[in-house]
Amino acid sequence: MTLKFPRELEILIAHLRKLPGVGIRTAERFAFAFLDYPKTDLGALGQLLIHLHEKIPLCLECGCLTDEGACPFCASKTRDRAQLCIIASPRDVFAIESTATYCGLYYVIEHLLSPLDGRHAEKINVQKIEAKITSCGTQEVILAFDSTLEGDATALYLKNRLAHLPVHISRLAFGLPVGGSLEYIDSGTLARSLKGRQVF
Amino acid sequence: MTLKFPRELEILIAHLRKLPGVGIRTAERFAFAFLDYPKTDLGALGQLLIHLHEKIPLCLECGCLTDEGACPFCASKTRDRAQLCIIASPRDVFAIESTATYCGLYYVIEHLLSPLDGRHAEKINVQKIEAKITSCGTQEVILAFDSTLEGDATALYLKNRLAHLPVHISRLAFGLPVGGSLEYIDSGTLARSLKGRQVF
Repeated sequence: MTLKFPRELEILIAHLRKLPGVGIRTAERFAFAFLDYPKTDLGALGQLLIHLHEKIPLCLECGCLTDEGACPFCASKTRDRAQLCIIASPRDVFAIESTATYCGLYYVIEHLLSPLDGRHAEKINVQKIEAKITSCGTQEVILAFDSTLEGDATALYLKNRLAHLPVHISRLAFGLPVGGSLEYIDSGTLARSLKGRQVF
Repeated sequence: MTLKFPRELEILIAHLRKLPGVGIRTAERFAFAFLDYPKTDLGALGQLLIHLHEKIPLCLECGCLTDEGACPFCASKTRDRAQLCIIASPRDVFAIESTATYCGLYYVIEHLLSPLDGRHAEKINVQKIEAKITSCGTQEVILAFDSTLEGDATALYLKNRLAHLPVHISRLAFGLPVGGSLEYIDSGTLARSLKGRQVF
């Protein structure tokens, strides 16, 4: 007879396995690490998780994370309201802001299209994006999605759905990453990099 | 100005960084994954963490995980009480049980010795191990620690501290892992494997 983990430990492991990139072994390791946490830490973490959605709410207008009520972008008077960057996760805001090259507004869609994972186009609220574009007087929509099949599909879908609006639609450039060497670059990236070559 | 994460998110990330092998990037990734968890899942996980120590108690006698009150080893009438396996984590029980070659009792010490990490010898309750050995009539103590500097130090410490007792003290064998090839084995393992060679 193989010795089984206590039932509550199995439940904890099942919860932790849902984290990205975490398999059964890592989940077990994390669960045993939690057993070693002091009780006060576990209490604080538990309370935080229970109230996570209330404590870190999303902006009702754009879907970005908000801290003390107001969304730092929608409420800002200094951001350029002519530009709207559409992203797939509130996390992407931090990556884009760290470049210090964009000063427009954001809109977070619910997910990238991925029908096999049950993420269908109907769940993307295009009416809300249209309303945001109209109310802000947006002139350029920047689609900032991953360079994956799902990102490509979502960009194409939104481009078609927003085509009737008087806005310029662009997407992040594809090409060599900074520091990348032709020797090691994959052919897909090189092909897109050639296709998107720019006047120099 | 770099955009900062909301304060509560920073706290969550700090908690998750304490997990083994989790750096800042992975902790951020986990934190955003938790934001995507349904509220019911977060509630269940939070409650579980808050009450983790009560729900998965340790056996007061040997330190193993217990499920429904009684420790499956200390309470067992079929386990061989003449053997006592000393381990450093309740998790190691599952690894040893999966071999189906050991049928004695266990004793979990608080930690391996690692003075630099603040894990000193004084925190290992040797009196309790001695009491367990006496009360069970143990004849053999098996030290089942990692093959690391900390494991070596702990094994040596316990060997010296238990030397006055009429018990045979052994430690797990070191050598080639099953399937291991001499071509790839490190010299440390090979040296211990040679030193511990057995009559064939």
